[in-house]
Amino acid sequence: MAASSLSRCCYFGHHGTFARMQMRCSRKASSLWVNGSSPCKMTTKIIRPLTRTMLKPPTSHSLAKRSLHATQLHLQEVMLTSERYGVQRLPFARVSDADLSFFECLMPGRVVTDVDELKLFNVDWLKSVRGCSKVLLKPQTTVEVSEILRYCNERNLAVNPQGGNTGLVGGSVPVFDEIILSTALMNQVISFDTVSGILVCQAGCILENLNNYLEELDFIMPLDLGAKGSCHIGGNVATNAGGLRLLRYGSLRGTVLGLEVVLADGSLLNCLTSLRKDNTGYDLKQLFIGSEGTLGIITAVSILCPRKPKAVNLAFLGCPSFSQVLQTFTTCKGMLGEILSAYEFMDSECMKLVERHLTLTSPVADSPFCVLIETSGSNSTHDEEKLSHFLEHVMASNLVIAGTLASEDTKIKALWALRERITEALTCDGAVYKYDISLPVERLYDLVTDMRERLGRSAKNVVGYGHLGDGNLHLNITAESYSHSLLDAIEPYVYEWTSKYQGSISAEHGLGFKKKHYIHYSKSQEAVLLMQQFKTMLDPKGILNPYKMLPAKTT
Amino acid sequence: MAASSLSRCCYFGHHGTFARMQMRCSRKASSLWVNGSSPCKMTTKIIRPLTRTMLKPPTSHSLAKRSLHATQLHLQEVMLTSERYGVQRLPFARVSDADLSFFECLMPGRVVTDVDELKLFNVDWLKSVRGCSKVLLKPQTTVEVSEILRYCNERNLAVNPQGGNTGLVGGSVPVFDEIILSTALMNQVISFDTVSGILVCQAGCILENLNNYLEELDFIMPLDLGAKGSCHIGGNVATNAGGLRLLRYGSLRGTVLGLEVVLADGSLLNCLTSLRKDNTGYDLKQLFIGSEGTLGIITAVSILCPRKPKAVNLAFLGCPSFSQVLQTFTTCKGMLGEILSAYEFMDSECMKLVERHLTLTSPVADSPFCVLIETSGSNSTHDEEKLSHFLEHVMASNLVIAGTLASEDTKIKALWALRERITEALTCDGAVYKYDISLPVERLYDLVTDMRERLGRSAKNVVGYGHLGDGNLHLNITAESYSHSLLDAIEPYVYEWTSKYQGSISAEHGLGFKKKHYIHYSKSQEAVLLMQQFKTMLDPKGILNPYKMLPAKTT
Repeated sequence: MAASSLSRCCYFGHHGTFARMQMRCSRKASSLWVNGSSPCKMTTKIIRPLTRTMLKPPTSHSLAKRSLHATQLHLQEVMLTSERYGVQRLPFARVSDADLSFFECLMPGRVVTDVDELKLFNVDWLKSVRGCSKVLLKPQTTVEVSEILRYCNERNLAVNPQGGNTGLVGGSVPVFDEIILSTALMNQVISFDTVSGILVCQAGCILENLNNYLEELDFIMPLDLGAKGSCHIGGNVATNAGGLRLLRYGSLRGTVLGLEVVLADGSLLNCLTSLRKDNTGYDLKQLFIGSEGTLGIITAVSILCPRKPKAVNLAFLGCPSFSQVLQTFTTCKGMLGEILSAYEFMDSECMKLVERHLTLTSPVADSPFCVLIETSGSNSTHDEEKLSHFLEHVMASNLVIAGTLASEDTKIKALWALRERITEALTCDGAVYKYDISLPVERLYDLVTDMRERLGRSAKNVVGYGHLGDGNLHLNITAESYSHSLLDAIEPYVYEWTSKYQGSISAEHGLGFKKKHYIHYSKSQEAVLLMQQFKTMLDPKGILNPYKMLPAKTT
Repeated sequence: MAASSLSRCCYFGHHGTFARMQMRCSRKASSLWVNGSSPCKMTTKIIRPLTRTMLKPPTSHSLAKRSLHATQLHLQEVMLTSERYGVQRLPFARVSDADLSFFECLMPGRVVTDVDELKLFNVDWLKSVRGCSKVLLKPQTTVEVSEILRYCNERNLAVNPQGGNTGLVGGSVPVFDEIILSTALMNQVISFDTVSGILVCQAGCILENLNNYLEELDFIMPLDLGAKGSCHIGGNVATNAGGLRLLRYGSLRGTVLGLEVVLADGSLLNCLTSLRKDNTGYDLKQLFIGSEGTLGIITAVSILCPRKPKAVNLAFLGCPSFSQVLQTFTTCKGMLGEILSAYEFMDSECMKLVERHLTLTSPVADSPFCVLIETSGSNSTHDEEKLSHFLEHVMASNLVIAGTLASEDTKIKALWALRERITEALTCDGAVYKYDISLPVERLYDLVTDMRERLGRSAKNVVGYGHLGDGNLHLNITAESYSHSLLDAIEPYVYEWTSKYQGSISAEHGLGFKKKHYIHYSKSQEAVLLMQQFKTMLDPKGILNPYKMLPAKTT
């Protein structure tokens, strides 16, 4: 039967061949077909080499880079946030020599005041916001974090917690001269239980390092995102990062089992349990997940990790329209069921930017839309059979017009790069206006076409991609440079549009500095008021990550 | 190859035959083998008829029953909580005629003051606690709930929210004369999206009714528990119910997407979003999940529902020791991977009680431990093949000594009843001391053997069962009647033991009235203090479910 033979032929015969060819040349796609030809009649296609430096073990220099692909920052060119946005500094104390002496005494050699060294930590990865902090602290232990906050709270010194500084909404760098508290040296695994799959680690562990550590023990992290080479698990939790595996393993609200948090006054809240279930009182840790460092500093995390799948397959497909992208998704959920682990979509404008700026090539370059489907399972034969039935069906139904498959690790990573490196390609295209929107899936792409029409030639590119399986659109608009007129054409229109369809104006990026004034488009006045009450209760002086996440109280 | 032929033979040949036999007689097990004989040589075994009344659509009379199997309550025999536990009434107002007139005007015909009718709502399902409320309110809408709370807050009247009254820790009935606010008439489905699988419904929908509704649309609820025939989804969320599907679909913290909550002062908090991802501010709904009605009353729920699995298989196995139960679990996680949907264990003492009191028969009656493994997947052939490889392996390794398989719905339900009806069997055995403990799986059964040895003949039965896949033990001790001496022998020993191994003294049942004083065994002083601050902030007069969950403030 055709599907079965495709399955075996594609996944084993061809990939076996491919793996050997790979030794000489890394430019071949794993298996490629176009509609009209049988999927069995595979051809190969030259694609340009994909650098995989992102997969190198991150070094200590990776801090403050979103990934090692990041373009060189021209830090001096970035306008100060306070000037660009006209923000008033709140009446916090300023760091004095006596303060520096205290910190130096607490953490000898781990107090950074060098102006050049500080530059990287004052600017976000997008080069969109810049602070002017004069001191960076690098604690190694929870006790040190506690001592720092106790002191800062007493002295009324504002503190900006910082993980890998990979955030996209200006939440991870100071607005003024807040002390930067980096978790970079809090990078130790505390324990891992191979029976339960529960990992306990310090907040500054880099996501990719954790995943590499776990893979050797036959497990994986339950989350994965493009910034994995730099982002810290503490930052992931503080921003409730979503990413590429959410569709399969759920959100951090389910997988994070425990947290250790230092509160604004330096007191320690130990909720670092390693239990799958615990119904003893309110689940306090939830308040800190996604609180963007405004309620406490996460110092350690306990997280449930799934087994490493025995078989991973990837299909990179071309669809003729967004309607077909949706139908392919529904079909996929039904036919791939429990092995579906990612369903991403990208429009052709995304792919053009990836080609132009990163010299990568989409294997389905002519398709208006690309879809990346990943399966992860425990039996490769079963998974390949399911995938091949699915592909046969979507090709026969004309939902998919072309595609390529991969089951070999290098090829899978190369295809994933086409999706993961879009953010990077966008930064090469000029000034980027980024929107991270949740919408009912049926409406997801309408916002992109609407915006493209609205902006016309005033934008360089309007592109849409994202985690379709989670109803999460990344709408990005590029221009030669930032301009108020373009911004005014985009906002608040984009938020009003989202609100009209009961969407979220921030699906996974958070509000940070840049989106905090738009919270009302997704949350009621009562909800915002309650959030402000929580903030006041936990951080009465407001020293933790000020100017971020919540608008100032009106009363 | 043996495993494959077993698979086909067992699941298709035999079950086909079985399905026809079922028409005449429902007493046969689906396929049964014992170690030493080949799994292929199937025999059938008579098991006694299993009443499945629990699966009948619940009627309006099911309120205040855990399930339709519940034994008749002898309500008058239940000692008043205030007397049994020596509790002091807090200075709330008492319900006056003017109050009743207000309620009657607000909800004509839905204010219950009849003493006999009220009895059922004043006593918990276990007959372990009893209040003396004089009024029960049955709102139908969120606006009515809001009006009730606004009025009660102003009048300083205490309110006891009640769903299906199936809780096991005395959280769902009044301690004194609190007004009972039942969600029984708030039982409407608001919407269901067949693309996203997101259900929005009122809080009083009965779990089983929701599941039946969804099954017709090819979806299921992400949670399932023994009390499904009576419990309300609002109560499930308010207690963060775990249950039988948590292993597969995760906890309510991940699957609940939105809540509508009425706060103590009657104000409405609308977080009823239907989005998979939303990072706009603190996730307020999390605070209400598992807050046991002490912070607000949940009036509507938005929840993500998985597709109905196309294939469900169940293996009911016998293991010679708990060590083999654990090894079978580890093997199972590796070999069944993504299709594993439940892993429950029961000791032989449990099975004896089920046999004795409910006239059910375990198909592996002679085994010291029973294990129930459920798989749910999208391809029955693949699932059966995985299961048969797994069974071949565990039989060959002597991890499992006997077992039976089922893939036909009626048989699956009959085997599940052996696990689900243990709670009911225990109540028939006499006074029950119930403990719902999370522990590292390696330690899980040690507590049972320890306790059995400690109590000796002073207990009638000491049994252990539970959700092994979640590290959740249900330790139950029965006696002819409640006695202080037996209680003193159990507590605080059981909590100290749990605390010593960093366990949780309530994995999924919550703290309610009965466990609130033991919270310190699982939570730090700082955490409890913070919880008390949240309670004070959200319910300054403390009118919501008083005497429950948190110990009174010491200052």
